[in-house]
Amino acid sequence: MWLQRQIGLASRPRGFHLVTDEIVEGVREIADLSVGLAHLHILHTSASLTLNENASPDVRRDFESWFAEAVPEDASYWTHTLEGPDDMPAHIKASLLGPSLTIPIGDGRFRLGTWQGIYLCEHRDSGGSRSVVVTVCGE
Amino acid sequence: MWLQRQIGLASRPRGFHLVTDEIVEGVREIADLSVGLAHLHILHTSASLTLNENASPDVRRDFESWFAEAVPEDASYWTHTLEGPDDMPAHIKASLLGPSLTIPIGDGRFRLGTWQGIYLCEHRDSGGSRSVVVTVCGE
Amino acid sequence: MWLQRQIGLASRPRGFHLVTDEIVEGVREIADLSVGLAHLHILHTSASLTLNENASPDVRRDFESWFAEAVPEDASYWTHTLEGPDDMPAHIKASLLGPSLTIPIGDGRFRLGTWQGIYLCEHRDSGGSRSVVVTVCGE
Repeated sequence: MWLQRQIGLASRPRGFHLVTDEIVEGVREIADLSVGLAHLHILHTSASLTLNENASPDVRRDFESWFAEAVPEDASYWTHTLEGPDDMPAHIKASLLGPSLTIPIGDGRFRLGTWQGIYLCEHRDSGGSRSVVVTVCGE
Repeated sequence: MWLQRQIGLASRPRGFHLVTDEIVEGVREIADLSVGLAHLHILHTSASLTLNENASPDVRRDFESWFAEAVPEDASYWTHTLEGPDDMPAHIKASLLGPSLTIPIGDGRFRLGTWQGIYLCEHRDSGGSRSVVVTVCGE
Repeated sequence: MWLQRQIGLASRPRGFHLVTDEIVEGVREIADLSVGLAHLHILHTSASLTLNENASPDVRRDFESWFAEAVPEDASYWTHTLEGPDDMPAHIKASLLGPSLTIPIGDGRFRLGTWQGIYLCEHRDSGGSRSVVVTVCGE
């Protein structure tokens, strides 16, 4: 069985946001699969997807703090500055975290760890809505 | 053909550890596949999986050194500090390296480069045993 | 349908290089698929693959600048120095960006975002030619 669908994620401010429920709602058909894989792919170069702790908002805030310091907006070596000071750091952060996630499916659900949630990582100050292509295969 | 299995990895100290043999032993059925993909997914948010140099222990030690410096325990901006100073850096490192690996299967084996080995990246001081869900599809 | 093929990428200087066309040319059979996934896997531990902005060369130059500063060649903690000062940083960068990409296939083509291109990330000063195993499944 193959399924592919594009899911729109509403615009969010810069930072790290839990979107597990939105993704799960978007591909309810996985309930029919005993085993499979779900591939989530964000169609952008200044936002990314990752899995991390799904409970404490502190963790998501600290993600933003670390990335803001590790990839500074005011670095002297940036040459791609036309689109604003948050743009080039957003490209770097997007590749560090990556544009896609592959999640195992077992017994009709995402087989995530107890504490794993799906993060939308919004690296632009005003990135707008974001689109994710979800591709599922399984049996 | 689909196969899904959970593999337990024994507790290891903080650092980077070669686990290629343990993973390969856990999914011997791939010997029957002419082509396919194996997806390895760690069910945790403070440990990760990556591929890197499988020969020199120096490389794995230098990974620990770089990550310890790049994501410092004593950064002033951490707010998620309840679980100890190694916890929040572990979450960041886990997402930088990622929770999963997809490995091509060809002629009944993992098609890795000569120097590629599977690393368990243990980012906690005492992370305990770790679980990996391996999902294989192929023909 | 399964397809697996090894694609050779010509030697390039250290830096970030767009290789979308070379990869697409190498797996023309995806034109026959209505839905699927393409997995690209680099067989090396000092080069990597990522997706990022496919238009401005400035972006790719700034990637090199950031990675060169974030993973410095002259760090005092490197112990794996036998293969030259660019080797150990190359291993770290390779794992930060990762050895593989999975790209959704829809309507016979890679479903990439408008601005997404495939980067070969060459982290060695003289890395030589690089090999990528492409595995495609779909229907």
